This record gives sequence, structure tokens and C-alpha cells, in this order.
Amino acid sequence: MATIRKSARTTTTAPERPHPDATRRSQRSRQAIYDAALALVGEVGYPKTTIEGIAARAGVGKQTIYRWWSSKAEVLLEAFLDLGEQAVQGQGQGQGASYAIPDTGDIAADLKAVLRATVDQLYDPKFEAPSRALAAEGLVNEQLGREFVAKLLEPSLQLHVDRLRAAQAAGQVRPEIDPRIALELFVSPLAQRWLQHTGPVSYDYTDTLVDYALHGLAPR
Amino acid sequence: MATIRKSARTTTTAPERPHPDATRRSQRSRQAIYDAALALVGEVGYPKTTIEGIAARAGVGKQTIYRWWSSKAEVLLEAFLDLGEQAVQGQGQGQGASYAIPDTGDIAADLKAVLRATVDQLYDPKFEAPSRALAAEGLVNEQLGREFVAKLLEPSLQLHVDRLRAAQAAGQVRPEIDPRIALELFVSPLAQRWLQHTGPVSYDYTDTLVDYALHGLAPR
Repeated sequence: MATIRKSARTTTTAPERPHPDATRRSQRSRQAIYDAALALVGEVGYPKTTIEGIAARAGVGKQTIYRWWSSKAEVLLEAFLDLGEQAVQGQGQGQGASYAIPDTGDIAADLKAVLRATVDQLYDPKFEAPSRALAAEGLVNEQLGREFVAKLLEPSLQLHVDRLRAAQAAGQVRPEIDPRIALELFVSPLAQRWLQHTGPVSYDYTDTLVDYALHGLAPR
Repeated sequence: MATIRKSARTTTTAPERPHPDATRRSQRSRQAIYDAALALVGEVGYPKTTIEGIAARAGVGKQTIYRWWSSKAEVLLEAFLDLGEQAVQGQGQGQGASYAIPDTGDIAADLKAVLRATVDQLYDPKFEAPSRALAAEGLVNEQLGREFVAKLLEPSLQLHVDRLRAAQAAGQVRPEIDPRIALELFVSPLAQRWLQHTGPVSYDYTDTLVDYALHGLAPR
């Protein structure tokens, strides 16, 4: 659910301007660690993922990881943020862009487009297994769940809040609606079908959610 | 999310009409096994819950469990069905009643009432930890997830389908609406807030979901 989000990653600045080669090596190690952490958590689950395991798979020393992060939760958090940034760049938005849900003036079309992109991301093999593993852990480990929701999920939900506020200003959404609740009418059904396999997911399905949410179930 | 559901439990009939005392002993053992299974899965999670552990905690022999069930998944499935039946009986509906969402003629009031009852159940200590543990396992174990959704969650969602169909017949919901999707506009947001701690849950919140879903976000 982190298709498009504001960049929140804190970049670790290497001390005293290292030589460019050292920086490149660091970036390669960092990427290898992210990839290893995501692959491992997707394969064995969060509880069995260890810093040692990530280091071995990434081909780096354990101390390389501990130099940059203090826990596997921190490594995974940054790995997911990096994955989200890659997805956004893959959609043609440049690095450092301030991400937002497009505003074409048509709230229905814009929400449908962002939900379709979310479907693509949720079922992307690079994303799906690690995200499920992390979500599963978050269900039973409330502290971890809250941290990942606050840092990964909520920023993307806030983009929906922003887009709904713009629609309120344009008269396309009623002014008394609370956007933070309203977005759940179309985001949460998709999340539940993905999380719990409660039904098939398609663009038709997410388009229908947007139509029902905007126009309501009762006769008009 | 199984507040009110049709009874689906298959009752195991003991062979050749046992003595009433034996039946009572069986019922006591069965209940002890359900309680032990739910407590254990809530405490240690699904992967570490074993038939041996359930037997020890229930104070019965392992063979007593294997006589009635072939796997821990089956024990847990029946334990949850039993918990659901107890909840319904606690709401004053007698055993064997055919459960349904009440139809007072006011779809908004009826949906608000059933969502409030669902909130109570989700945060009931007897229900919450085992349900979270099972949901977490279902996220990463697709076969188990699908089985529990089909047998525990979907029957309660079908009651919403039935109530929405009645509302369509009464002209309170548009005839072209698909009830199986429509119910997700208010059920899934509650499920996601409960599962992922994405926001506070209150009766006010669930009432708001019903109002938004029925009347839509766009101006009328």
C-alpha cells in the first residue's frame, strides 16, 4: 500500500567525504543488504530473520550491518522504503520528486488510477512475500506493527487524505466528510482481500470500490 | 468478524448411544480442548501450537484429541466455531437458532448495530489473541488462511449479503449494487484497523463508516 509516498528515508552521511569508490562500494553493500533482508523475511518470516542471516546472504560482514543499523527491524524498514522509492522511480518519477496522487480534476479517475497501481505493487513478487511476512508479524507484535504502519503505510494513506481534501475544495467530495476515514472505504477492502485472500482482486474490483465509495449504496 | 453466523459445526455423534455420564465427560473434555487450543495459539502462535501442548493443557491424553480430530488446524477451527456460538448465545439467541442480521426495516440502524457487536467481539480478550494469531498465520500460510476464511469469516459476511439483498428489495440500496463488494466498504475498514492498528476503533467510527458507505462521499 506504499505505491506512492513522500520520501522519508534518512540518508546516512558517511563521515568526512569518503573517496568516491568507497561511496560506491557502500551503496552496493547497502543495496545487497536490502535485497538480502527482503528475500530472507519473505522466505523464513520475521522471527527467523537474523542480522547474521542477512549478512551471510548479502556477502558482507555482520559488523557492516551493525555500523549502519542497530536492529533487523531498522534494516527492514529502510529496505521497504528503498523498495517503495524504486517502484516510484519505475513509474517514471525522478529521484527526490515530491510524490502525490495526481490531480486531473476528476477524483474518481485519479483514485482508480492509484488503486490500480497499488494492485500492481501488492502482487509484485519482489514486494508480496516480504510484505506479507512483515504484516503477519505486525498482527501479533503490536510495537513492530505500529512502527511499520506509522513509517510505511500511513505516509501513503496521507496522500489519499491530501487528494480527498483537494476534491473537497473542488466540490467533488462533501465538506463534512473526514478524509482519513473516507479513504478506508476503498483502500481497506483491497488491503483485506490481499491480506486475507477473502476474494479476487482485479482492476474492475478496485474501480467498483471507488464508484461505490463516491456515490454510496443508497438510491440518490 | 464472526459475531453472528449460521451454525456450521458438525457434531460428532458418539457410537451406540453412550451412557449419559460418558457423554457429559466427553463434552467436558471437548470444551477443555477448545479452551486450551485457543489459549495456546494466542500465547505462542500457530506454528508452536501442537496437539501435545493442547492435550497437556487440557489435561487429556493425546489420543483423546486424535480420536476426534486429525490436525491442530481442525481443533482450532472447531474451537473458533464454538467460541462464535457462545458469543451468539451470550447475545440472547438460543442454541440452534438460525442467525441473521436483524431486519428492522432501517438498513443503517441494523448495520450500525451489527458493527458495534463486531467491535465488542474483536476486542473481547477471549477472542482477540487467538484470532490475531490465526490471522497472522493465514497471511503467510495461504492454504490455512483460505480454509479459515471460508469456514469462519465468509459465513458471517454472507449474513451481510443477505441483509443488503433485503435492503435492495426494500428500495434502500440501489439494485445494481453487488452486495458482496458493498459490505466491504464498512466491514474491511474495521478489519484493517483491528488487524493492523491503523487507527482507533469506536462505535462512532463504525457508525460513520455505515453512513459514508450508504450515502457516498460525493455531494448528492
